[in-house]
Amino acid sequence: MSVPPVLGTMSKHIVSSFDNDLILVQAKISEMGGQCEELLSKALEAVEKHDKALAKRVIERDKKIDTLEMEVEELVVTTIALRQPMAQDLRVLISAMKIATTLERIGDLAKNISKRTLTVSKAGPVPITSSIVRMGRATLAQLSEVLNAYTARDTAKAVGVWNRDVDIDEMYNALFREVVTYMMEDSRMIGAGSQMLFVAKNLERIGDHTTHVSEMIYYIVNGELLGDDRPKGEPLGLDME
Amino acid sequence: MSVPPVLGTMSKHIVSSFDNDLILVQAKISEMGGQCEELLSKALEAVEKHDKALAKRVIERDKKIDTLEMEVEELVVTTIALRQPMAQDLRVLISAMKIATTLERIGDLAKNISKRTLTVSKAGPVPITSSIVRMGRATLAQLSEVLNAYTARDTAKAVGVWNRDVDIDEMYNALFREVVTYMMEDSRMIGAGSQMLFVAKNLERIGDHTTHVSEMIYYIVNGELLGDDRPKGEPLGLDME
Repeated sequence: MSVPPVLGTMSKHIVSSFDNDLILVQAKISEMGGQCEELLSKALEAVEKHDKALAKRVIERDKKIDTLEMEVEELVVTTIALRQPMAQDLRVLISAMKIATTLERIGDLAKNISKRTLTVSKAGPVPITSSIVRMGRATLAQLSEVLNAYTARDTAKAVGVWNRDVDIDEMYNALFREVVTYMMEDSRMIGAGSQMLFVAKNLERIGDHTTHVSEMIYYIVNGELLGDDRPKGEPLGLDME
Repeated sequence: MSVPPVLGTMSKHIVSSFDNDLILVQAKISEMGGQCEELLSKALEAVEKHDKALAKRVIERDKKIDTLEMEVEELVVTTIALRQPMAQDLRVLISAMKIATTLERIGDLAKNISKRTLTVSKAGPVPITSSIVRMGRATLAQLSEVLNAYTARDTAKAVGVWNRDVDIDEMYNALFREVVTYMMEDSRMIGAGSQMLFVAKNLERIGDHTTHVSEMIYYIVNGELLGDDRPKGEPLGLDME
Protein backbone atom coordinates (compact mmCIF):
# COMPACT_ATOMS: atom_id res chain seq x y z
CA MET A 1 0.00 0.00 0.00
CA SER A 2 1.39 3.44 -0.89
CA VAL A 3 0.48 6.50 1.13
CA PRO A 4 -1.41 9.12 -0.95
CA PRO A 5 0.64 12.34 -1.15
CA VAL A 6 -2.22 14.58 -0.05
CA LEU A 7 -2.87 16.16 3.31
CA GLY A 8 -6.11 17.15 5.01
CA THR A 9 -8.78 14.65 5.93
CA MET A 10 -6.94 11.82 4.18
CA SER A 11 -3.85 12.46 6.31
CA LYS A 12 -6.01 12.56 9.44
CA HIS A 13 -7.54 9.25 8.44
CA ILE A 14 -4.07 7.72 8.11
CA VAL A 15 -2.99 8.95 11.53
CA SER A 16 -6.15 7.60 13.05
CA SER A 17 -5.63 4.16 11.43
CA PHE A 18 -2.14 4.13 12.83
CA ASP A 19 -3.45 4.85 16.32
CA ASN A 20 -5.81 1.93 15.87
CA ASP A 21 -2.87 -0.28 14.90
CA LEU A 22 -1.02 0.72 18.06
CA ILE A 23 -4.08 0.06 20.21
CA LEU A 24 -4.54 -3.34 18.59
CA VAL A 25 -0.89 -4.30 19.16
CA GLN A 26 -1.10 -3.30 22.81
CA ALA A 27 -4.40 -5.13 23.28
CA LYS A 28 -2.82 -8.30 21.90
CA ILE A 29 0.12 -7.94 24.29
CA SER A 30 -2.32 -7.58 27.20
CA GLU A 31 -4.18 -10.67 26.03
CA MET A 32 -0.91 -12.63 25.83
CA GLY A 33 0.05 -11.39 29.29
CA GLY A 34 -3.27 -12.52 30.75
CA GLN A 35 -2.83 -15.95 29.17
CA CYS A 36 0.67 -16.22 30.67
CA GLU A 37 -0.57 -15.30 34.13
CA GLU A 38 -3.28 -17.91 33.94
CA LEU A 39 -0.93 -20.57 32.58
CA LEU A 40 1.62 -19.97 35.34
CA SER A 41 -1.11 -19.95 37.99
CA LYS A 42 -2.48 -23.29 36.74
CA ALA A 43 1.03 -24.76 36.46
CA LEU A 44 1.65 -23.91 40.12
CA GLU A 45 -1.72 -25.36 41.12
CA ALA A 46 -0.78 -28.59 39.31
CA VAL A 47 2.53 -28.72 41.22
CA GLU A 48 0.79 -28.08 44.52
CA LYS A 49 -1.97 -30.68 44.07
CA HIS A 50 0.05 -33.18 42.00
CA ASP A 51 -2.71 -32.76 39.46
CA LYS A 52 -1.64 -34.50 36.23
CA ALA A 53 -4.79 -33.69 34.30
CA LEU A 54 -4.34 -29.98 35.02
CA ALA A 55 -0.65 -30.16 34.06
CA LYS A 56 -1.67 -31.67 30.71
CA ARG A 57 -4.15 -28.86 30.11
CA VAL A 58 -1.41 -26.29 30.75
CA ILE A 59 0.83 -28.01 28.19
CA GLU A 60 -1.96 -27.96 25.64
CA ARG A 61 -2.95 -24.33 26.23
CA ASP A 62 0.54 -22.96 25.65
CA LYS A 63 -0.15 -23.20 21.90
CA LYS A 64 -2.60 -20.32 22.16
CA ILE A 65 0.24 -18.08 23.39
CA ASP A 66 2.47 -19.17 20.50
CA THR A 67 -0.26 -18.15 18.06
CA LEU A 68 -0.68 -14.77 19.72
CA GLU A 69 3.06 -14.13 19.44
CA MET A 70 2.95 -14.72 15.69
CA GLU A 71 -0.03 -12.37 15.40
CA VAL A 72 1.79 -9.60 17.26
CA GLU A 73 4.86 -10.06 15.10
CA GLU A 74 2.91 -9.88 11.86
CA LEU A 75 1.00 -6.82 13.00
CA VAL A 76 4.19 -5.02 14.07
CA VAL A 77 6.05 -5.76 10.85
CA THR A 78 3.14 -4.68 8.66
CA THR A 79 2.62 -1.52 10.67
CA ILE A 80 6.29 -0.49 10.56
CA ALA A 81 6.52 -1.15 6.83
CA LEU A 82 3.33 0.74 5.97
CA ARG A 83 3.41 3.63 8.43
CA GLN A 84 7.13 4.36 8.87
CA PRO A 85 6.64 5.40 12.49
CA MET A 86 9.33 7.40 14.29
CA ALA A 87 10.36 8.09 17.89
CA GLN A 88 7.96 6.78 20.56
CA ASP A 89 5.59 5.11 18.09
CA LEU A 90 8.46 3.09 16.66
CA ARG A 91 9.62 2.19 20.16
CA VAL A 92 6.11 1.00 21.09
CA LEU A 93 6.07 -1.32 18.07
CA ILE A 94 9.58 -2.73 18.41
CA SER A 95 9.05 -3.21 22.14
CA ALA A 96 5.75 -4.98 21.50
CA MET A 97 7.56 -7.51 19.32
CA LYS A 98 10.20 -8.06 21.99
CA ILE A 99 7.64 -8.30 24.79
CA ALA A 100 5.67 -10.84 22.73
CA THR A 101 8.84 -12.96 22.40
CA THR A 102 9.41 -12.65 26.16
CA LEU A 103 5.82 -13.64 27.01
CA GLU A 104 5.99 -16.59 24.62
CA ARG A 105 9.09 -17.73 26.50
CA ILE A 106 7.28 -17.34 29.84
CA GLY A 107 4.49 -19.54 28.44
CA ASP A 108 7.09 -22.12 27.42
CA LEU A 109 8.58 -22.14 30.91
CA ALA A 110 5.13 -22.60 32.50
CA LYS A 111 4.54 -25.47 30.09
CA ASN A 112 7.90 -26.96 31.00
CA ILE A 113 7.06 -26.79 34.72
CA SER A 114 3.93 -28.81 33.94
CA LYS A 115 5.91 -31.36 31.93
CA ARG A 116 8.23 -31.86 34.89
CA THR A 117 5.22 -32.15 37.19
CA LEU A 118 4.10 -35.11 35.09
CA THR A 119 7.55 -36.73 35.28
CA VAL A 120 7.98 -36.18 39.00
CA SER A 121 4.64 -37.56 40.03
CA LYS A 122 5.71 -40.77 38.32
CA ALA A 123 9.20 -40.78 39.79
CA GLY A 124 8.61 -40.82 43.54
CA PRO A 125 8.36 -38.47 46.52
CA VAL A 126 8.50 -34.76 45.81
CA PRO A 127 10.58 -32.66 48.18
CA ILE A 128 10.06 -28.97 48.87
CA THR A 129 6.74 -28.61 47.04
CA SER A 130 5.59 -25.85 49.36
CA SER A 131 8.79 -23.81 48.89
CA ILE A 132 8.48 -24.15 45.12
CA VAL A 133 4.86 -22.99 45.20
CA ARG A 134 5.76 -20.02 47.41
CA MET A 135 8.51 -18.98 44.99
CA GLY A 136 6.06 -19.48 42.12
CA ARG A 137 3.44 -17.21 43.70
CA ALA A 138 6.05 -14.47 44.19
CA THR A 139 7.06 -14.82 40.53
CA LEU A 140 3.43 -14.65 39.41
CA ALA A 141 2.89 -11.48 41.50
CA GLN A 142 5.87 -9.85 39.75
CA LEU A 143 4.48 -10.84 36.35
CA SER A 144 1.02 -9.38 37.14
CA GLU A 145 2.60 -6.17 38.40
CA VAL A 146 4.72 -5.68 35.28
CA LEU A 147 1.71 -6.28 33.02
CA ASN A 148 -0.21 -3.60 34.92
CA ALA A 149 2.79 -1.29 34.55
CA TYR A 150 2.77 -1.94 30.79
CA THR A 151 -0.90 -1.02 30.41
CA ALA A 152 -0.46 2.13 32.49
CA ARG A 153 3.01 3.01 31.05
CA ASP A 154 4.02 3.30 34.70
CA THR A 155 7.83 3.35 34.79
CA ALA A 156 8.02 3.65 38.60
CA LYS A 157 6.04 0.43 38.94
CA ALA A 158 8.16 -1.21 36.22
CA VAL A 159 11.40 -0.24 37.96
CA GLY A 160 9.97 -1.56 41.25
CA VAL A 161 9.46 -4.98 39.65
CA TRP A 162 12.95 -4.84 38.19
CA ASN A 163 14.49 -4.11 41.61
CA ARG A 164 12.49 -6.78 43.43
CA ASP A 165 13.71 -9.57 41.15
CA VAL A 166 16.60 -9.96 43.58
CA ASP A 167 14.08 -11.51 46.02
CA ILE A 168 13.21 -14.19 43.45
CA ASP A 169 16.93 -14.85 42.89
CA GLU A 170 17.43 -15.28 46.61
CA MET A 171 14.48 -17.65 46.90
CA TYR A 172 16.00 -19.64 44.05
CA ASN A 173 19.41 -19.87 45.71
CA ALA A 174 17.82 -20.95 49.01
CA LEU A 175 15.73 -23.56 47.17
CA PHE A 176 18.76 -24.85 45.31
CA ARG A 177 20.59 -25.48 48.58
CA GLU A 178 17.48 -26.98 50.16
CA VAL A 179 17.03 -29.49 47.32
CA VAL A 180 20.72 -30.44 47.26
CA THR A 181 20.57 -31.04 51.03
CA TYR A 182 17.51 -33.27 50.64
CA MET A 183 19.28 -35.24 47.94
CA MET A 184 22.35 -35.69 50.11
CA GLU A 185 20.28 -36.91 53.05
CA ASP A 186 18.19 -39.36 51.06
CA SER A 187 19.38 -40.70 47.71
CA ARG A 188 15.78 -41.68 46.81
CA MET A 189 15.19 -37.93 46.46
CA ILE A 190 17.79 -37.48 43.72
CA GLY A 191 15.53 -38.24 40.75
CA ALA A 192 12.63 -36.03 41.82
CA GLY A 193 15.03 -33.50 43.38
CA SER A 194 16.84 -33.03 40.06
CA GLN A 195 13.52 -32.30 38.38
CA MET A 196 12.64 -29.83 41.14
CA LEU A 197 15.96 -28.01 40.60
CA PHE A 198 14.80 -27.34 37.05
CA VAL A 199 11.32 -26.25 38.13
CA ALA A 200 12.94 -23.71 40.46
CA LYS A 201 15.27 -22.65 37.67
CA ASN A 202 12.30 -22.17 35.32
CA LEU A 203 10.65 -19.89 37.89
CA GLU A 204 13.86 -17.92 38.28
CA ARG A 205 14.00 -17.50 34.48
CA ILE A 206 10.37 -16.30 34.44
CA GLY A 207 11.51 -13.68 36.97
CA ASP A 208 14.31 -12.61 34.61
CA HIS A 209 11.94 -12.38 31.66
CA THR A 210 9.61 -10.27 33.79
CA THR A 211 12.41 -7.75 34.40
CA HIS A 212 12.95 -7.71 30.65
CA VAL A 213 9.37 -6.42 30.26
CA SER A 214 10.22 -3.73 32.85
CA GLU A 215 13.15 -2.69 30.69
CA MET A 216 10.93 -2.44 27.62
CA ILE A 217 8.40 -0.23 29.46
CA TYR A 218 11.21 2.06 30.54
CA TYR A 219 12.52 2.17 26.96
CA ILE A 220 9.08 3.00 25.51
CA VAL A 221 8.55 5.91 27.88
CA ASN A 222 12.07 7.32 28.13
CA GLY A 223 13.70 6.26 24.86
CA GLU A 224 16.73 4.93 26.69
CA LEU A 225 17.81 1.70 28.35
CA LEU A 226 17.27 1.05 32.04
CA GLY A 227 20.91 0.14 32.60
CA ASP A 228 22.85 -2.99 33.27
CA ASP A 229 23.23 -2.83 37.03
CA ARG A 230 20.14 -4.68 38.22
CA PRO A 231 20.77 -6.12 41.67
CA LYS A 232 21.20 -9.89 41.48
CA GLY A 233 21.15 -12.44 44.26
CA GLU A 234 24.39 -14.39 44.10
CA PRO A 235 25.16 -15.37 47.71
CA LEU A 236 27.87 -17.89 48.61
CA GLY A 237 29.35 -17.97 45.12
CA LEU A 238 26.38 -19.98 43.87
CA ASP A 239 25.75 -17.97 40.76
CA MET A 240 22.59 -19.32 39.21
CA GLU A 241 21.89 -16.99 36.32
CA MET B 1 14.77 11.01 5.75
CA SER B 2 12.07 11.09 3.09
CA VAL B 3 12.49 9.19 -0.15
CA PRO B 4 12.52 11.52 -3.18
CA PRO B 5 9.53 10.75 -5.44
CA VAL B 6 11.58 10.50 -8.62
CA LEU B 7 12.71 7.44 -10.51
CA GLY B 8 15.80 6.87 -12.66
CA THR B 9 19.33 7.15 -11.29
CA MET B 10 18.07 8.43 -7.95
CA SER B 11 15.86 5.38 -7.54
CA LYS B 12 18.77 3.15 -8.49
CA HIS B 13 20.88 4.89 -5.89
CA ILE B 14 18.23 4.18 -3.24
CA VAL B 15 18.05 0.51 -4.15
CA SER B 16 21.82 0.28 -4.01
CA SER B 17 21.96 1.88 -0.53
CA PHE B 18 19.34 -0.57 0.60
CA ASP B 19 21.43 -3.49 -0.70
CA ASN B 20 24.34 -2.10 1.28
CA ASP B 21 22.15 -2.03 4.40
CA LEU B 22 21.22 -5.68 3.86
CA ILE B 23 24.86 -6.66 3.35
CA LEU B 24 25.86 -4.79 6.50
CA VAL B 25 23.13 -6.47 8.56
CA GLN B 26 24.19 -9.90 7.33
CA ALA B 27 27.86 -9.17 7.94
CA LYS B 28 27.07 -8.22 11.53
CA ILE B 29 25.14 -11.47 12.00
CA SER B 30 28.12 -13.41 10.68
CA GLU B 31 30.41 -11.52 13.04
CA MET B 32 28.11 -12.32 15.99
CA GLY B 33 27.98 -15.96 14.90
CA GLY B 34 31.78 -16.17 14.78
CA GLN B 35 32.01 -14.64 18.26
CA CYS B 36 29.49 -17.19 19.58
CA GLU B 37 31.42 -20.11 18.09
CA GLU B 38 34.62 -18.89 19.68
CA LEU B 39 32.96 -18.23 23.04
CA LEU B 40 31.42 -21.70 23.14
CA SER B 41 34.70 -23.30 22.05
CA LYS B 42 36.61 -21.49 24.82
CA ALA B 43 33.90 -22.31 27.39
CA LEU B 44 34.28 -26.01 26.56
CA GLU B 45 38.06 -25.77 26.76
CA ALA B 46 37.70 -24.20 30.22
CA VAL B 47 35.44 -27.07 31.32
CA GLU B 48 37.86 -29.65 29.94
CA LYS B 49 41.01 -28.17 31.51
CA HIS B 50 39.35 -26.75 34.65
CA ASP B 51 40.85 -23.46 33.51
CA LYS B 52 39.38 -20.71 35.69
CA ALA B 53 41.29 -17.88 34.02
CA LEU B 54 39.91 -18.90 30.64
CA ALA B 55 36.38 -19.21 32.08
CA LYS B 56 36.68 -15.64 33.38
CA ARG B 57 37.75 -14.39 29.94
CA VAL B 58 34.69 -16.05 28.40
CA ILE B 59 32.43 -14.28 30.91
CA GLU B 60 34.05 -10.95 30.09
CA ARG B 61 33.92 -11.37 26.32
CA ASP B 62 30.18 -12.07 26.21
CA LYS B 63 29.64 -8.28 26.44
CA LYS B 64 30.94 -7.88 22.90
CA ILE B 65 28.08 -10.10 21.64
CA ASP B 66 25.52 -8.07 23.59
CA THR B 67 26.78 -4.90 21.89
CA LEU B 68 26.59 -6.51 18.46
CA GLU B 69 22.98 -7.52 19.11
CA MET B 70 22.05 -3.93 19.85
CA GLU B 71 23.81 -2.78 16.69
CA VAL B 72 21.89 -5.30 14.56
CA GLU B 73 18.62 -4.24 16.14
CA GLU B 74 19.22 -0.56 15.54
CA LEU B 75 20.26 -1.18 11.95
CA VAL B 76 17.19 -3.33 11.25
CA VAL B 77 14.74 -0.86 12.76
CA THR B 78 16.25 2.10 10.91
CA THR B 79 16.31 0.20 7.63
CA ILE B 80 12.69 -0.95 7.88
CA ALA B 81 11.49 2.53 8.82
CA LEU B 82 13.40 4.28 6.03
CA ARG B 83 13.17 1.78 3.18
CA GLN B 84 9.79 0.09 3.71
CA PRO B 85 11.06 -3.20 2.33
CA MET B 86 8.62 -5.90 1.22
CA ALA B 87 8.66 -9.66 0.69
CA GLN B 88 12.07 -11.32 0.96
CA ASP B 89 13.91 -8.12 1.90
CA LEU B 90 11.58 -7.61 4.85
CA ARG B 91 12.00 -11.25 5.84
CA VAL B 92 15.79 -10.89 5.76
CA LEU B 93 15.61 -7.92 8.12
CA ILE B 94 13.09 -9.32 10.58
CA SER B 95 14.95 -12.64 10.62
CA ALA B 96 18.25 -10.85 11.25
CA MET B 97 16.78 -9.26 14.36
CA LYS B 98 15.49 -12.61 15.58
CA ILE B 99 18.76 -14.39 14.79
CA ALA B 100 20.67 -11.66 16.66
CA THR B 101 18.46 -12.29 19.72
CA THR B 102 19.09 -16.02 19.38
CA LEU B 103 22.87 -15.60 19.08
CA GLU B 104 22.91 -13.25 22.06
CA ARG B 105 21.16 -15.97 24.04
CA ILE B 106 23.75 -18.55 22.87
CA GLY B 107 26.47 -16.19 24.09
CA ASP B 108 24.70 -15.93 27.47
CA LEU B 109 24.53 -19.72 27.75
CA ALA B 110 28.25 -20.06 26.95
CA LYS B 111 28.94 -17.44 29.62
CA ASN B 112 26.75 -19.32 32.07
CA ILE B 113 28.66 -22.55 31.39
CA SER B 114 31.83 -20.68 32.32
CA LYS B 115 30.27 -19.31 35.50
CA ARG B 116 29.36 -22.83 36.54
CA THR B 117 32.86 -23.99 35.69
CA LEU B 118 34.16 -21.50 38.24
CA THR B 119 31.70 -22.75 40.87
CA VAL B 120 32.36 -26.42 40.27
CA SER B 121 36.11 -26.23 40.43
CA LYS B 122 35.65 -24.80 43.91
CA ALA B 123 33.03 -27.33 44.95
CA GLY B 124 34.82 -30.66 44.59
CA PRO B 125 35.23 -33.51 42.12
CA VAL B 126 33.66 -33.09 38.70
CA PRO B 127 31.90 -36.09 37.26
CA ILE B 128 31.40 -36.78 33.56
CA THR B 129 33.58 -33.96 32.24
CA SER B 130 34.45 -35.91 29.11
CA SER B 131 30.79 -36.65 28.27
CA ILE B 132 29.95 -32.96 28.72
CA VAL B 133 32.79 -31.90 26.43
CA ARG B 134 31.74 -34.45 23.79
CA MET B 135 28.17 -33.13 23.87
CA GLY B 136 29.56 -29.58 23.71
CA ARG B 137 31.64 -30.33 20.61
CA ALA B 138 28.59 -31.80 18.87
CA THR B 139 26.61 -28.67 19.75
CA LEU B 140 29.40 -26.43 18.45
CA ALA B 141 29.52 -28.39 15.17
CA GLN B 142 25.77 -27.81 14.73
CA LEU B 143 26.20 -24.09 15.41
CA SER B 144 29.03 -23.78 12.85
CA GLU B 145 26.99 -25.65 10.26
CA VAL B 146 23.94 -23.43 10.69
CA LEU B 147 26.05 -20.29 10.41
CA ASN B 148 27.47 -21.59 7.13
CA ALA B 149 23.93 -22.34 5.98
CA TYR B 150 22.93 -18.77 6.82
CA THR B 151 25.74 -17.24 4.77
CA ALA B 152 24.99 -19.52 1.82
CA ARG B 153 21.16 -19.35 2.22
CA ASP B 154 21.37 -23.15 2.05
CA THR B 155 18.01 -24.48 3.25
CA ALA B 156 19.00 -28.15 2.79
CA LYS B 157 21.92 -27.65 5.14
CA ALA B 158 19.70 -25.70 7.57
CA VAL B 159 17.09 -28.47 7.61
CA GLY B 160 19.88 -31.02 8.17
CA VAL B 161 20.94 -29.16 11.32
CA TRP B 162 17.31 -28.95 12.43
CA ASN B 163 16.85 -32.70 12.05
CA ARG B 164 20.10 -33.62 13.78
CA ASP B 165 19.21 -31.73 16.96
CA VAL B 166 17.57 -34.95 18.11
CA ASP B 167 21.12 -36.32 18.60
CA ILE B 168 21.92 -33.48 20.99
CA ASP B 169 18.68 -34.14 22.87
CA GLU B 170 19.60 -37.80 23.22
CA MET B 171 23.09 -36.96 24.47
CA TYR B 172 21.46 -34.68 27.01
CA ASN B 173 19.07 -37.35 28.25
CA ALA B 174 21.92 -39.87 28.53
CA LEU B 175 24.01 -37.33 30.43
CA PHE B 176 21.15 -36.50 32.77
CA ARG B 177 20.81 -40.15 33.74
CA GLU B 178 24.58 -40.54 34.04
CA VAL B 179 24.87 -37.58 36.42
CA VAL B 180 21.90 -38.70 38.54
CA THR B 181 23.45 -42.17 38.81
CA TYR B 182 26.77 -40.69 39.95
CA MET B 183 24.98 -38.61 42.55
CA MET B 184 23.11 -41.65 43.84
CA GLU B 185 26.30 -43.68 44.12
CA ASP B 186 28.32 -40.98 45.88
CA SER B 187 26.61 -38.15 47.73
CA ARG B 188 29.83 -36.07 47.53
CA MET B 189 29.02 -35.74 43.83
CA ILE B 190 25.65 -34.05 44.42
CA GLY B 191 26.93 -30.45 44.60
CA ALA B 192 29.10 -30.62 41.47
CA GLY B 193 26.67 -32.99 39.79
CA SER B 194 23.82 -30.52 40.14
CA GLN B 195 25.97 -27.86 38.47
CA MET B 196 26.83 -30.30 35.68
CA LEU B 197 23.12 -30.98 35.09
CA PHE B 198 22.75 -27.28 34.32
CA VAL B 199 25.83 -27.20 32.07
CA ALA B 200 24.34 -30.08 30.06
CA LYS B 201 21.00 -28.27 30.02
CA ASN B 202 22.71 -25.10 28.72
CA LEU B 203 24.25 -27.09 25.88
CA GLU B 204 20.89 -28.63 25.05
CA ARG B 205 19.38 -25.12 24.96
CA ILE B 206 22.17 -23.95 22.62
CA GLY B 207 21.13 -26.85 20.37
CA ASP B 208 17.52 -25.61 20.43
CA HIS B 209 18.57 -22.06 19.61
CA THR B 210 20.64 -23.41 16.72
CA THR B 211 17.53 -25.05 15.24
CA HIS B 212 15.80 -21.69 15.61
CA VAL B 213 18.41 -20.21 13.24
CA SER B 214 17.62 -23.08 10.83
CA GLU B 215 13.97 -22.08 10.95
CA MET B 216 14.83 -18.46 10.18
CA ILE B 217 16.94 -19.48 7.14
CA TYR B 218 14.04 -21.54 5.85
CA TYR B 219 11.68 -18.62 6.42
CA ILE B 220 13.95 -16.15 4.59
CA VAL B 221 14.25 -18.36 1.52
CA ASN B 222 10.73 -19.83 1.34
CA GLY B 223 8.58 -17.25 3.07
CA GLU B 224 6.95 -19.89 5.22
CA LEU B 225 7.61 -21.64 8.51
CA LEU B 226 9.51 -24.91 8.71
CA GLY B 227 6.77 -26.58 10.75
CA ASP B 228 6.32 -27.68 14.30
CA ASP B 229 7.19 -31.36 14.03
CA ARG B 230 10.92 -31.36 14.67
CA PRO B 231 11.99 -34.77 16.01
CA LYS B 232 12.79 -34.51 19.70
CA GLY B 233 14.61 -36.94 21.92
CA GLU B 234 12.35 -37.80 24.83
CA PRO B 235 13.16 -41.40 25.72
CA LEU B 236 11.94 -43.06 28.92
CA GLY B 237 9.52 -40.28 29.77
CA LEU B 238 12.41 -37.98 30.72
CA ASP B 239 11.21 -34.94 28.87
CA MET B 240 13.95 -32.38 29.17
CA GLU B 241 12.83 -29.54 26.99
